[in-house]
Amino acid sequence: MIIIGVGFAGLECARQLANQPGLLVTVVDRTNHHLFQPLLYQVAIAGLEAPAIAEPARGLLRGAPNVRFVMGEVQHIDLERQIVSGDERRLRYDYLVVATGSRTARFDIPGIAEHALEMKTLDEAMAIRDQILSACESATRERDPERRKALLTFVIVGGGSTGVELAGALAELRLHVLPRDFPEIKRDEFRVLLVESTEYPLTSMGERLGRYAERTLSDNFEVEIISGTRVTEVFEDGVMTDKGEKIPAYTVIWTAGVTGAVIDGLPEPGRGRRIETTPGLTLPDHPNVFVVGDINGAINPDTGEPFPQLGQNAVQQGKQAALNILRDMRGKPPKPFRYSDKGVWVTIGRNKGVAQFMGREFTGLFAWLAWLFIHLMLLASFRNRLLVFMSWVYSYVTYDFAVRIIHRRRLFPSQTPAAVSPGGGQ
Amino acid sequence: MIIIGVGFAGLECARQLANQPGLLVTVVDRTNHHLFQPLLYQVAIAGLEAPAIAEPARGLLRGAPNVRFVMGEVQHIDLERQIVSGDERRLRYDYLVVATGSRTARFDIPGIAEHALEMKTLDEAMAIRDQILSACESATRERDPERRKALLTFVIVGGGSTGVELAGALAELRLHVLPRDFPEIKRDEFRVLLVESTEYPLTSMGERLGRYAERTLSDNFEVEIISGTRVTEVFEDGVMTDKGEKIPAYTVIWTAGVTGAVIDGLPEPGRGRRIETTPGLTLPDHPNVFVVGDINGAINPDTGEPFPQLGQNAVQQGKQAALNILRDMRGKPPKPFRYSDKGVWVTIGRNKGVAQFMGREFTGLFAWLAWLFIHLMLLASFRNRLLVFMSWVYSYVTYDFAVRIIHRRRLFPSQTPAAVSPGGGQ
Repeated sequence: MIIIGVGFAGLECARQLANQPGLLVTVVDRTNHHLFQPLLYQVAIAGLEAPAIAEPARGLLRGAPNVRFVMGEVQHIDLERQIVSGDERRLRYDYLVVATGSRTARFDIPGIAEHALEMKTLDEAMAIRDQILSACESATRERDPERRKALLTFVIVGGGSTGVELAGALAELRLHVLPRDFPEIKRDEFRVLLVESTEYPLTSMGERLGRYAERTLSDNFEVEIISGTRVTEVFEDGVMTDKGEKIPAYTVIWTAGVTGAVIDGLPEPGRGRRIETTPGLTLPDHPNVFVVGDINGAINPDTGEPFPQLGQNAVQQGKQAALNILRDMRGKPPKPFRYSDKGVWVTIGRNKGVAQFMGREFTGLFAWLAWLFIHLMLLASFRNRLLVFMSWVYSYVTYDFAVRIIHRRRLFPSQTPAAVSPGGGQ
Repeated sequence: MIIIGVGFAGLECARQLANQPGLLVTVVDRTNHHLFQPLLYQVAIAGLEAPAIAEPARGLLRGAPNVRFVMGEVQHIDLERQIVSGDERRLRYDYLVVATGSRTARFDIPGIAEHALEMKTLDEAMAIRDQILSACESATRERDPERRKALLTFVIVGGGSTGVELAGALAELRLHVLPRDFPEIKRDEFRVLLVESTEYPLTSMGERLGRYAERTLSDNFEVEIISGTRVTEVFEDGVMTDKGEKIPAYTVIWTAGVTGAVIDGLPEPGRGRRIETTPGLTLPDHPNVFVVGDINGAINPDTGEPFPQLGQNAVQQGKQAALNILRDMRGKPPKPFRYSDKGVWVTIGRNKGVAQFMGREFTGLFAWLAWLFIHLMLLASFRNRLLVFMSWVYSYVTYDFAVRIIHRRRLFPSQTPAAVSPGGGQ
């Protein structure tokens, strides 16, 4: 059998099937590592080194001789002939688990692909880090006040949890790291803007928590929130909004939604390019093909809504697919998937978070501490946990983000030559 | 005054001049970090994460209000008008310290720039890591035996300390990590070749230590050493030697020498593109311009040879330049530089090293332990020391290299499509 994707769903499925007698499992992924996406934004703001949230897939699967890993991109699934193909290779399956996750949704808005930064892979998060730090370096050398302002304006589009967490973290960088690293830049010059189409951030968590996040971001962290506004175009030097206003900014980070990472050959996707499945998580016409995680578009019978695109849902669905495969091998029918809500936790910044848990709502320190604890526990390996924990303790104690390394310097539209200035004298 | 370069020499010079009254120092570097080059090879073989050996320049210079940092590339020095220019910017200096270091020497050998991997920057080291791991992944999917062999042949050109340390580390990856991560690859298939033009490696350390390194590499670590052989051309799929033999290999790492990183406007460089200076480390016609570190081409009066291109020499020269600037400000003549040899230490692999220290020679465990200790102490920050120490303990205890992440998958010349193969069944 084949599992496509080694994210939360695919990895959990493989782990459940490890060392199961009579079963050979091939796990395929475009990358060679499992990535802990919930902490990507901390790589982007120089708080964590990239390897702290990525664990080699082969290492995670070492203990299971019946599981093998293939690095490669699946380009096509032939459901009739039961063949998966890509990278000039073809593999036959008896069972197939599609756990390809989601990618950034661009909604056909012009300029996103060329000028906005996305944040779904390690490389993208590192490119954001390079961009933020390069923009600060360029700003120190820029004499044109308009260009300097645009270099120091950071626009985050999307008021979901990713946008909120990134905005809060970037604001902390501005409050605590900027003054020490860049005495040439005044704190007011570095602006963090959060643009969202709804009335307040985190709408999916309800008005009380959303308004708390809004207040905390703007009062405690000095994030400028632009609500009820859509971005209609992204340029090299700014964004255009549906209010007809152009915001000058060289850095635009796009977090406004995801879309299923569909593979050619799968049935036509539905809303959000997610694939509809039976309650047992299989394709309606192909009971040996499971679709799990972010790309699963089935309706949760308990809520009447699609399942949430969260790591906990992916883990649970990956596990269910594994159990249903084992049931099928024993001639038993698949069990319908039931989603168990373990709560939703969002951090805003130091000591501030919001949470929904067991039907109750939490704000502030408790939600923040719970967020830290839960994310540590969910990391894929002890090594990752230790590295992240140490980085967090370091940042909490020193108010610093340690990984301020520019790997690839990002260049901005050419500057006008400046006059000779003193490099310093006696 | 201006310091160009924040390597060992430039950083030490800046540190010596920190908080000196009446002196404004501008440090310029192409990157935003000080890089601990002696451990780059451990990033290349997945033993260390990149941020463990890089420290942000602004962080290192935080404590000194009279030192500022500018990220930028200096393209020209106007010695007459005392102006440094680059990136459309010009800076005037009274004192100038050129500490640009060295870059990989290609000796006009065709194909190096296009097909060989070099190892002088963080990005280059990470590209080598991506290449080694990608080659193993590709090999598992390769059915053509010749291509599979070339994918698993790793050629290191150059028998100096960088080549020896890299060969030993790569051999350890092969011995301890490969069998666990890639059960599909037999140990004999993964070949590490060290090609050197001299009779034995580490010739600069003399025959006894060189022969010890040669024996240890080939007997303990199963590195294939090809001595007395020059590479005359590098191709995408191998190297040609001066014996007329072509070695098929998709991975060629070039460590065969460095050349001074000269900037336009400096006097004509001498051997190895190093710049000749007075004993006080200044340009003969410009007593306010110091040239220090790898790029300094002065002759050591104690040996009759140029100063060694080592970190310890760079640190000492950087310090001397700072002291001579302070002397000049007080109207005193510059002091001639005297190199103090702190010993030369090279690691070969687990528990094996060679060293020259205080006129004596050491091999084996003691040289290896001393190497570990000295390199830890030389790292630029406590954070780096802690991260590197933890990684070393981890690797020593587990026989594992933790950072086996492919950031950018490296592609190899296109493979022939394979027949359908089973992805595993019941």
